[in-house]
Amino acid sequence: MKFGIVARRDKKAALKLAYRVYDFLKVSGYDVCVDSDTHRHLPEFQEADVCPLEDFDVDFIIVIGGDGTILRVEHRTKREIPILGINMGTLGFLTEVEPHEAFFALSKLIEGDYHIDERIKLRTYLNGENTVPDALNEVAILTGIPGKIIHLRYYIEGGLADEIRADGLIVSTPTGSTGYSMSAGGPFVDPRLDVVVIAPLAPIALSSRPMIIPSYSTIDVRNLALEREIILAIDGQFYTYLKPETEITIKLSPRRTKFVRFTDEVYPKYTARLKNRF
Amino acid sequence: MKFGIVARRDKKAALKLAYRVYDFLKVSGYDVCVDSDTHRHLPEFQEADVCPLEDFDVDFIIVIGGDGTILRVEHRTKREIPILGINMGTLGFLTEVEPHEAFFALSKLIEGDYHIDERIKLRTYLNGENTVPDALNEVAILTGIPGKIIHLRYYIEGGLADEIRADGLIVSTPTGSTGYSMSAGGPFVDPRLDVVVIAPLAPIALSSRPMIIPSYSTIDVRNLALEREIILAIDGQFYTYLKPETEITIKLSPRRTKFVRFTDEVYPKYTARLKNRF
Amino acid sequence: MKFGIVARRDKKAALKLAYRVYDFLKVSGYDVCVDSDTHRHLPEFQEADVCPLEDFDVDFIIVIGGDGTILRVEHRTKREIPILGINMGTLGFLTEVEPHEAFFALSKLIEGDYHIDERIKLRTYLNGENTVPDALNEVAILTGIPGKIIHLRYYIEGGLADEIRADGLIVSTPTGSTGYSMSAGGPFVDPRLDVVVIAPLAPIALSSRPMIIPSYSTIDVRNLALEREIILAIDGQFYTYLKPETEITIKLSPRRTKFVRFTDEVYPKYTARLKNRF
Amino acid sequence: MKFGIVARRDKKAALKLAYRVYDFLKVSGYDVCVDSDTHRHLPEFQEADVCPLEDFDVDFIIVIGGDGTILRVEHRTKREIPILGINMGTLGFLTEVEPHEAFFALSKLIEGDYHIDERIKLRTYLNGENTVPDALNEVAILTGIPGKIIHLRYYIEGGLADEIRADGLIVSTPTGSTGYSMSAGGPFVDPRLDVVVIAPLAPIALSSRPMIIPSYSTIDVRNLALEREIILAIDGQFYTYLKPETEITIKLSPRRTKFVRFTDEVYPKYTARLKNRF
Repeated sequence: MKFGIVARRDKKAALKLAYRVYDFLKVSGYDVCVDSDTHRHLPEFQEADVCPLEDFDVDFIIVIGGDGTILRVEHRTKREIPILGINMGTLGFLTEVEPHEAFFALSKLIEGDYHIDERIKLRTYLNGENTVPDALNEVAILTGIPGKIIHLRYYIEGGLADEIRADGLIVSTPTGSTGYSMSAGGPFVDPRLDVVVIAPLAPIALSSRPMIIPSYSTIDVRNLALEREIILAIDGQFYTYLKPETEITIKLSPRRTKFVRFTDEVYPKYTARLKNRF
Repeated sequence: MKFGIVARRDKKAALKLAYRVYDFLKVSGYDVCVDSDTHRHLPEFQEADVCPLEDFDVDFIIVIGGDGTILRVEHRTKREIPILGINMGTLGFLTEVEPHEAFFALSKLIEGDYHIDERIKLRTYLNGENTVPDALNEVAILTGIPGKIIHLRYYIEGGLADEIRADGLIVSTPTGSTGYSMSAGGPFVDPRLDVVVIAPLAPIALSSRPMIIPSYSTIDVRNLALEREIILAIDGQFYTYLKPETEITIKLSPRRTKFVRFTDEVYPKYTARLKNRF
Repeated sequence: MKFGIVARRDKKAALKLAYRVYDFLKVSGYDVCVDSDTHRHLPEFQEADVCPLEDFDVDFIIVIGGDGTILRVEHRTKREIPILGINMGTLGFLTEVEPHEAFFALSKLIEGDYHIDERIKLRTYLNGENTVPDALNEVAILTGIPGKIIHLRYYIEGGLADEIRADGLIVSTPTGSTGYSMSAGGPFVDPRLDVVVIAPLAPIALSSRPMIIPSYSTIDVRNLALEREIILAIDGQFYTYLKPETEITIKLSPRRTKFVRFTDEVYPKYTARLKNRF
Repeated sequence: MKFGIVARRDKKAALKLAYRVYDFLKVSGYDVCVDSDTHRHLPEFQEADVCPLEDFDVDFIIVIGGDGTILRVEHRTKREIPILGINMGTLGFLTEVEPHEAFFALSKLIEGDYHIDERIKLRTYLNGENTVPDALNEVAILTGIPGKIIHLRYYIEGGLADEIRADGLIVSTPTGSTGYSMSAGGPFVDPRLDVVVIAPLAPIALSSRPMIIPSYSTIDVRNLALEREIILAIDGQFYTYLKPETEITIKLSPRRTKFVRFTDEVYPKYTARLKNRF
């Protein structure tokens, strides 16, 4: 068994815990690969065990950080490697255990006493080409100029679903339903469901409502105000400006994200975390 | 092929159209059964063709009215008979055709040029027993005294999902997502999905949000304010007062509602109707 | 100086603190009047000092309880007597001090080191007659049958403001803006403002929004579904069924509620309490 | 009496009507001043009657366009000149008459048969200096990077009102309550009120709510995430990037906007227009 290790770079405690995890795994005789960014912030790791996230070829990735760190790992690794998240963030919808449970969790993982929780992702095509990362949380199509509304039409399986003048449109997985989508008024979605949330962001029309649609739906978004630039934001991590006439298509990705879980509990696990958004 | 006919009783135009449909089917040589309530409001139908909704043993039911009429038919018929709804209501999320399309639609139905759209329903158990109708739209658990909040806890598959002080709790199918659930802040849900919406009604806690969960989930609702009576309202049609200590359980019903459809279009068919809620 | 004392009846600690306040004031040589309901739950008070709330003729009323207890006092006393609220409730938007500050607060009150915070109230006229209590929080016009929507039109100064199909309509003071009105989607309103919030409760129309209007406005509400009974609920304390054709008019009351305050702080005093609604 | 004329530049019908208004006023013997931008798009106006908006020194400005055109006039004129708006826009909350009523309205204006509707404006101070235009609708403090939340604290009269992580914060006049503020969840506010709406834009915390505060309140906004740029957007017309540490203060402006009105009707005049936002 081979492990990858990634830590949140801006939190000392996360880097320290990462080192203790590294030490524990090495002493236990496992191969370990430390993310080079993490290494740059804590040079104690042995040079020989360091490699870039993009080259991770391991059985599990131990991520010490918050949801942002996990999203970064997801965007940069190339294979579907199961992730065990140790929470060093604020909310922690994606992480599985708290720091004090880290070594107990590692032991269970090594003993095979876990299961894999697969989450759907969304793939975005710009003029028919996929050149951007898959979204584990959401694809946000946003005004290029904050405060200037954009005018969008969106189609589901070719049928016109709505036309909005708004700050943007959020297309979210169940995993992302507790993120940007919820700030835009979307509901909590059970992470096991194969559905997608579409939520307009600050729409002018009082009648616009979030929608829940099948995950296999093809969503086409068209910008009607051709003088206005648009931003595509994926998981709050990847950003790109789009030409106004870009044809945006969002579909279920063939890839999934795999999380190591020790229980298959959903309630109250996720609903209780919601309260922390307070 | 045998047809049942039911019309909205408070609208003359609906009763008249029902008679024309009856006449057309009789002349075409089909057996027809007219609902006795409809007959009571328009006595022109032949006595021999009249029977109570509960005894309908037909291949299709032609309903001339609005969503309320269809819900009434669903609550009172005993078998899963496909329904063709001709819209004589205000909104018409459940009906398939407009009055001027009625005879064209009947012809297509007779020719077999249609398909069946199956919708999930919810079954409610009170202290373990099911004695109330299945819900095609929603099960609403409401305060017995308008304006006096109730205090509920609800569990999904045994896990605590939320505890609310509110006017009530709406548990809705995708079909019902455009009804009471939406008034309570719930999203539009694609009618093809196997999910359930749980939406608190005017909750005190600012953090309560609607939830989307798998349709196969068992939902248990417990009333914590034992001095307060509760009302169970199913599809806005069936009402009953519950003793405060009643254990309420909601599950997917083994029955489904079958609608005759001539297209399988969802967008913009349903989303456009949303705008009529304005 | 003469004091009235009222305690929440269902909480032992509140009754006990009421007795200690009573003892303190008696020993300090003041006349004290204890509410007869409070006396019924704690018989230690001297019989001679007991009188019904309706007959209170005192300079200040010390209320030991939550917002509900204060609203009850407001509904039953006949004069505008300043109230000092000691919080023994859950939220406490109306109370001024916590139990441990009670005697310090009484000393300041006796020394004259306080000011009076006046709050507007709403008066309801039914077919032109005022026979119901003034509202310190809100007047709620609700469906008589939970779950069955009512159809209302409301006019502001004679002009049609909106027509709604909803569970009800909440007309709230700034004081009530953190109560039922907020559950219906209304905003927080600074308690010093002379405005009224009108918030539809679970409206069908997606375009209905809460409104803020001048407190001097005359609001007329008409029930359009004449077969349906309506409930009038004032401050969640006073309830009455109305005949469907009743003409409801809501105006600023000539009476105000007076609270003893030791600071004139609004922020973060009230906004922090909002978080406790969580 | 001297008149100014400004038309929406991107709509031929508006420019044509502007010319007819110009012609009518000239023939009637009045001095007329045509905005140089309008002239650039329709050269028929006499050169001698053209001058920049900034130099308008007239008794009334006739604006032919939508709310955007009126906001542009407000931002660029230097004196409080009464505006008569002729609606050539989509919504028209600020305009008074429709195109077919234009000449009837002008006659009434000339005869003195009108009144002036004064609306409050908000003034923004950056590090204590006011260098930006007053807001007739709203001051929006927005993330500099769409989709990246900002972390703000805002104080009312020195007291902490809330701390938010959001896309931004909208501080709106009653006039602006039907604009961006409403898209962010704010209520409709009667235009005669002296209040301000504060509405967080897509906040992470589920408990954030819009607030209504007195117009004389001083609002201080502080950016807590000092690595993040902020955009200040006034009335959707004026945009500027702010350094993260900029201290933003918003107060009632000493200036007001004056509109020519022929009725003082508010309901259903404005509430009916709300429905057009659909």
